[in-house]
Amino acid sequence: MNKPLILVTNDDGIYSEGIYVLQQALAEMGRTVVVAPEAEKSAVGHAITISDPIRIKEVSRRNGFTGYAVAGTPADCVKLAVKALLEESPDIVVSGINLGANIGTSVLYSGTVSAATEGVILGIPAIAISIASLVNPDYSYAAKIAKKFTGLVLDNGLPEGTALNINVPNVPEKEVRGIKITRQGASNYNEKFDRRVDPRQRIYFWMDGDLIHPKEDPDLDDIALRDKFVSVTPLHYDLTNKESFTFFKTWDIFNNDR
Amino acid sequence: MNKPLILVTNDDGIYSEGIYVLQQALAEMGRTVVVAPEAEKSAVGHAITISDPIRIKEVSRRNGFTGYAVAGTPADCVKLAVKALLEESPDIVVSGINLGANIGTSVLYSGTVSAATEGVILGIPAIAISIASLVNPDYSYAAKIAKKFTGLVLDNGLPEGTALNINVPNVPEKEVRGIKITRQGASNYNEKFDRRVDPRQRIYFWMDGDLIHPKEDPDLDDIALRDKFVSVTPLHYDLTNKESFTFFKTWDIFNNDR
Repeated sequence: MNKPLILVTNDDGIYSEGIYVLQQALAEMGRTVVVAPEAEKSAVGHAITISDPIRIKEVSRRNGFTGYAVAGTPADCVKLAVKALLEESPDIVVSGINLGANIGTSVLYSGTVSAATEGVILGIPAIAISIASLVNPDYSYAAKIAKKFTGLVLDNGLPEGTALNINVPNVPEKEVRGIKITRQGASNYNEKFDRRVDPRQRIYFWMDGDLIHPKEDPDLDDIALRDKFVSVTPLHYDLTNKESFTFFKTWDIFNNDR
Repeated sequence: MNKPLILVTNDDGIYSEGIYVLQQALAEMGRTVVVAPEAEKSAVGHAITISDPIRIKEVSRRNGFTGYAVAGTPADCVKLAVKALLEESPDIVVSGINLGANIGTSVLYSGTVSAATEGVILGIPAIAISIASLVNPDYSYAAKIAKKFTGLVLDNGLPEGTALNINVPNVPEKEVRGIKITRQGASNYNEKFDRRVDPRQRIYFWMDGDLIHPKEDPDLDDIALRDKFVSVTPLHYDLTNKESFTFFKTWDIFNNDR
């Protein structure tokens, strides 16, 4: 039997440390193909490139993989890999290891998560994995978790239309308190815009902000992660708020006087 | 009492026809402020600009509004308007009128919808509105629907964390069969990548594809719209697939041999 085919991607770009570590770990359990953005594409959300040509080139990492660098978004990478570059469909898409947590509302802005969602849209089980720090990441435990869950998903599959969004605390393995299946949290950035004037007297802003955790619930991804658990959140891409349907029953939608 | 403050945005850009029509319609029921991308930002999803400065400039449309053009994404526009440009918080965010439907999985790629979602994240009720054609749009009925639902939302509010995604068929009003509260559909693009070689012998791809409707269900946005109904889908931004939780009960997550 062929070893499983694992499509590896990310949003920090093909030259990042996180994707190198991820590919090295997953190469121990399957055939890996790396198709990732040429440059960093953080916070691009689920953007796709429909009005520009998408360029690709082969890239070799020293002592590592040869893959495709794509001048596009993480979602572009997954679509292009599955529909144009690969001769067989991957058994799983693994996106990461992202530098910085993807929790709470950040999930919406995350290119890492959108690559996994794109896999699922194409019918392929998918995992996004991130480490909860922007500085001094120690990827060793996150790589172990990536391998463990890749194995679990290859063995068990995932419910239809579902990807796993995994966040790993950036602490030594012995300080990790466990693994939790979580819900997307409510954490959010309290944005501040820093207004400046450039040398040509034109106004511009820098977006910045502090992460806030408005809800204390140990089963939310942000709270679990803060408390040094690995959070594993099953995500789908149906945004319908079904619970809200009763709300609209009272609406006078068919009143034509409006 | 002050008239309601209506923040108007889109992803087709501040110079588009759809935002002009939308602002003109909503100006009849409140004070409008337009903050929209300087250039077309279709398919950018929920991208935000965190690594580049965000420039703004004032723009006046002939016989129309004066607003802010933002060198950024739709989500940037809403954040910037609420957190930096406006002195009071808007009562509602209305995004559109988008040229082309935002239904099924397209909702994930849609800048129009992400602007509405961003409003909701900031605690402001929000509507996204699109017309189901890329050519020869007749915005008159869509403008009426935008006004009707803006009024309904201003009067009734929306459930917490919920935005409305409205799609209007591009047919004369008398051919519209009605208004339906719908669920996000399963329609999807069956992407094709057109591989080409440029004059310098470099490879590039164009992404293209046909829309497919894999599920026939009259309560899905794509099917309702195809059948000439106005689809109104309540969307939230919690992507957790709660129904999948039982699936993971059987997983051997704590087996450390993996």
